[in-house]
Amino acid sequence: MVMQSRLCIGIDPGLAVTGYGLVRETSQGELEHLDHGVIRTAADREDHERLLSLYQGLQSIVEQYQPQTCAVEKIFMQRNVKTAIRVGQGRGAALIALAGSQRSLAEYTPMEIKQAVVGYGNADKEQVQEMVKLLLGLSKIPRPDDAADALAVAICHLHSSRQNFLAER
Amino acid sequence: MVMQSRLCIGIDPGLAVTGYGLVRETSQGELEHLDHGVIRTAADREDHERLLSLYQGLQSIVEQYQPQTCAVEKIFMQRNVKTAIRVGQGRGAALIALAGSQRSLAEYTPMEIKQAVVGYGNADKEQVQEMVKLLLGLSKIPRPDDAADALAVAICHLHSSRQNFLAER
Repeated sequence: MVMQSRLCIGIDPGLAVTGYGLVRETSQGELEHLDHGVIRTAADREDHERLLSLYQGLQSIVEQYQPQTCAVEKIFMQRNVKTAIRVGQGRGAALIALAGSQRSLAEYTPMEIKQAVVGYGNADKEQVQEMVKLLLGLSKIPRPDDAADALAVAICHLHSSRQNFLAER
Repeated sequence: MVMQSRLCIGIDPGLAVTGYGLVRETSQGELEHLDHGVIRTAADREDHERLLSLYQGLQSIVEQYQPQTCAVEKIFMQRNVKTAIRVGQGRGAALIALAGSQRSLAEYTPMEIKQAVVGYGNADKEQVQEMVKLLLGLSKIPRPDDAADALAVAICHLHSSRQNFLAER
C-alpha cells in the first residue's frame, strides 16, 4: 500500500516556552523525525510582546517547513482563571501562526496523546518520551521536555488521522 | 499649547464579537471620532478558524488606519476556567493583530475605563455610552455595544496617556 507522504507539526503551546516538533509520515507509512525545538519568550517583556515573538517564531518555522497538518496539545487544567486567560492568549497566538492556507489543525488532550503514543492513556511522561525516541529512531530522548511533548502530539496526529486520511483519498 | 495628533484604536476583544473604535486626538487636544464597528466570527466554524478571521479582520483595520497606539479592555471575570481559556485565545489573536512595528499597546480594566470616561469607576453601561456620544460629538450612541465599549477604551487611553505623552516630548 502506498500513501502520500505527510508532514505534521506538533505544538505544545505556552507563553514562556512553546515546544514544536516536525514529523513526516513517508509514503510507506514510516515516521521520520525532521526537527524539534522550543520558542522561548522573555519573561521581562510585556505579554503582547511575548505573544508577538511566539507568533513570529512559530510562523517562521511553518514557513520553513510548510507542514500540511498541525496538531496542538489541548489544555485541560489550570490553577485559576487568571492563569487560564494568559495560557489561552498564548494558545491564540500559536493557533494564528499555524492556521491559514489549507493547513488542517487538530487538537488532542494529553490523555489522547498518551493513548496514541504509548497505547495507555495514563502513561507517565518518561514512558511517552521513551516511545517518542523509539518511534522516531532517535539515539536519545529529545530535549527539552516541551519539544519531546510536541513530537508526541505530531505522532499522535499522524497515527490517529491515518484512517481518516486513507478514507478521504 | 500644541500637541502632536494621535490616533488610537480601542478594542473590546471577544471570540464571537470584537468591537473596535478609532479616535484621534487632534493637535489641539480635541477628540475626533473616525470609525467604529465589530468583527463577528461564525459560531459554526472551529475555534482556530474563528481566531484567524478575527485576526485578519483586525489586521486589515489596523493597516487601513495605521493607529499609533492601541488600547485593549482587560478581562476581569470569567465564569470558569474553560471559558477563560477560550476568551484568552481571542485576546491573543487580537493582541497579535495589534502588536508589531512601533505601535504602543495599553490595557485597561473596565473600572479604569469608566473612571476615565465618566469620572466614576462604578458607572453603568448607559452612562459610559452617553459620555462616549458626548465626548465624540456624535448624534447618537454608537452601536452595537461592543463598538461603543471599544470607543470608550480608546478615549480612556487618550485621556490617561496624555500626561505621559506630554512628558515624553
